[in-house]
Amino acid sequence: MAVLMHRDEGENLRLEMRRLGEAARKASAELALASSESKNTALKAAAAAIRANAKAILAANAKDMAAASDLSPALRDRLMLDSSRIEAMATGCEEVAALPDPIGAVMAEWTRPNGLKIARVRVPLGVVGIIYESRPNVTADASALCLKSGNAAILRGGSESFHSSAAIVECMHEGLRGAGLPEASVQLVPSIAREAVGIMLSMADTIDVIIPRGGRSLIERVAAESRIPVIKHLEGICHVFVSDKADADMARRIVLNSKMRRTGVCGAAETLLVGAGAAKTILPAIVEDLEKAGCEVRGDATTQTLDKRVVPATDKDWDTEYLDAIISVKVVKGVDEAIAHINAHGSHHTDTIVTADAKEAERFLTHVDSGIVLHNASTQFADGGEFGMGAEIGISTGKLHARGPVGAEQLTSYKYVVRGSGQVRP
Amino acid sequence: MAVLMHRDEGENLRLEMRRLGEAARKASAELALASSESKNTALKAAAAAIRANAKAILAANAKDMAAASDLSPALRDRLMLDSSRIEAMATGCEEVAALPDPIGAVMAEWTRPNGLKIARVRVPLGVVGIIYESRPNVTADASALCLKSGNAAILRGGSESFHSSAAIVECMHEGLRGAGLPEASVQLVPSIAREAVGIMLSMADTIDVIIPRGGRSLIERVAAESRIPVIKHLEGICHVFVSDKADADMARRIVLNSKMRRTGVCGAAETLLVGAGAAKTILPAIVEDLEKAGCEVRGDATTQTLDKRVVPATDKDWDTEYLDAIISVKVVKGVDEAIAHINAHGSHHTDTIVTADAKEAERFLTHVDSGIVLHNASTQFADGGEFGMGAEIGISTGKLHARGPVGAEQLTSYKYVVRGSGQVRP
Repeated sequence: MAVLMHRDEGENLRLEMRRLGEAARKASAELALASSESKNTALKAAAAAIRANAKAILAANAKDMAAASDLSPALRDRLMLDSSRIEAMATGCEEVAALPDPIGAVMAEWTRPNGLKIARVRVPLGVVGIIYESRPNVTADASALCLKSGNAAILRGGSESFHSSAAIVECMHEGLRGAGLPEASVQLVPSIAREAVGIMLSMADTIDVIIPRGGRSLIERVAAESRIPVIKHLEGICHVFVSDKADADMARRIVLNSKMRRTGVCGAAETLLVGAGAAKTILPAIVEDLEKAGCEVRGDATTQTLDKRVVPATDKDWDTEYLDAIISVKVVKGVDEAIAHINAHGSHHTDTIVTADAKEAERFLTHVDSGIVLHNASTQFADGGEFGMGAEIGISTGKLHARGPVGAEQLTSYKYVVRGSGQVRP
Repeated sequence: MAVLMHRDEGENLRLEMRRLGEAARKASAELALASSESKNTALKAAAAAIRANAKAILAANAKDMAAASDLSPALRDRLMLDSSRIEAMATGCEEVAALPDPIGAVMAEWTRPNGLKIARVRVPLGVVGIIYESRPNVTADASALCLKSGNAAILRGGSESFHSSAAIVECMHEGLRGAGLPEASVQLVPSIAREAVGIMLSMADTIDVIIPRGGRSLIERVAAESRIPVIKHLEGICHVFVSDKADADMARRIVLNSKMRRTGVCGAAETLLVGAGAAKTILPAIVEDLEKAGCEVRGDATTQTLDKRVVPATDKDWDTEYLDAIISVKVVKGVDEAIAHINAHGSHHTDTIVTADAKEAERFLTHVDSGIVLHNASTQFADGGEFGMGAEIGISTGKLHARGPVGAEQLTSYKYVVRGSGQVRP
């Protein structure tokens, strides 16, 4: 795909991006004040348009798939659309329409002794720039969540998904038109050139926040280059710690589900930590379960002695998100070593402890510095829907603004509205 | 003051800053889990130390003042300490001690149909880097708020206040020692070299958030250079809009107080907008009030015709924070032109409307895109204390993470704690 550009092309792209930004800024001012009704009308009309244009979307996707023959099977699967995935996008828009409108909600309200009435009221962030992988469904999900929260969206999907995303954005525009809202509320970066991302990250006057989704290299590039605040969605290097005090059956179920339910999601476990006692009693069965399910096990010295099929783990394994049927296994002395390992090697995403000891569980939940910490439950619950928050754009691994699942409510800011009767400050 | 450095000095500073960052990171892990009691003990002991060491602080401040003879009177006033300002710092620490501890608070809690219990729990941000003006009292206030919220602080005050700040940090250390908490919870950047700020902004592995306070040039430098998320505290270009439907007496009181109560605070009004009708009926008295109080009035053409003492305003005036007894005045057609002017020229800080018309007020409160919007009240209420939030580090003019007054609660993040009984995801 085109990566290098002529100088003129670069200049044209810069102009085009500036126009995009200005249009988004203008749309966001209108969208910020749009009624819940008109936003929901747009979302439902977009859902209808997605269904009505399923054939066109599939044709665009076929074009993308044909050009992406060199991608890995896992990435091709992320890129591929079929009728059920298209229906899921339409349903997603309708589900977002059904969520409560976060905008205008009074988060808190109080009266001061001098009679000033202070209210903290939710408002949109403004213009949200989203940089994501070649996953066409994110185009629909992200558009819907931004629209619901009154934000204009500038979308930059992976270059392999360009035609699919363009077809989906067409449907969002149809929805917006149907509700009398500006089309520029949702815009796709019109170029697959890598330079477009760099330009986007410099548009601090028209973009209020950048949400990058993807691997460490993208997030690092964005953090280094961006002149705009970032809500980072780093990879998920998630851990299961099986304590010596774990129930064996529960531990087996939770490890298998955390790793193998779906291996390509960010909440999938990548590393298993096991207490020294449990390594003798429970680990052999866990390794057996994983091998049976087709998972490659990469273990430390102790784990290697338990089963011949265990591959030796290298240092790199502890810092790797496989997104595949591979798991690294390490035996630790106890909960404190597990905590230290997770805080050093994890991505502050999602980690779980399996134990029957409530005190040990509390120690883990308190000391592990991740957005989501669980006790006796699968890491695969790391999901806005599973949390009851409706749809999500992803899981924030940063601590600023939003942590954990980022739904419509996390795409908002607030303002203080103060009502007086002539008060001046003494 | 030393600004240029030899290469060796630069290398030494880099090493020293790295050590500072690592010490802060280590302290923050301990501080995050400290009890409310020990944090409050440290704050009260710090207050006692400030009182006990008042002489040493005054001596250090005298050194700073002597070296800063070329500063403007306004800046010298910000730098100067006396016994009442020292007492105010001590009282400030005690007041922060008396605030509720934000850390560990359960912000929300719910149970999912599958039995998972989800809690959203407040946690500290980690290490907070604060870059501020030559105002020694900020050293005490910022330390106290960070300590209360379980964050380690790295402080970089203006170079002119170095000795004063160092003496105050000594007192914070005395407090921390008294409570058995690590001294590295509060650290002052040990160099007044400008390079130290650049190094600080690159320390993304040890600093979690940067809070810059100050003028546009500092904030712009920080936004451009920082590899760390920023909670920006821009200048306050605050507006009073006096509508044609304003009560004349109330308008006069609010304008005078917004501008003149204290001219050096960020919530002071810098620009007065007046409806065309009110320009005839109320503005002459307002100009009279301001002139009497010693305020220079810079007006547009209409305002100039009202009073001989009015100086012509230039385009630059609409974008200027005077922090002084100067005000710019512009006559506008009505509330919509006022809103457009504020959104274009303000700093999204604090703006007020004076009107007896509730509908017009709501239009202003909804459409002005600022952290604090008021109706019939002075802009000088822009203050965490006046909002009932206790002390504040400043007023955030950004939309991400925190907007408006930034107190202990705004210096926190959260994590999701999920308690299960063996749940796996279907």
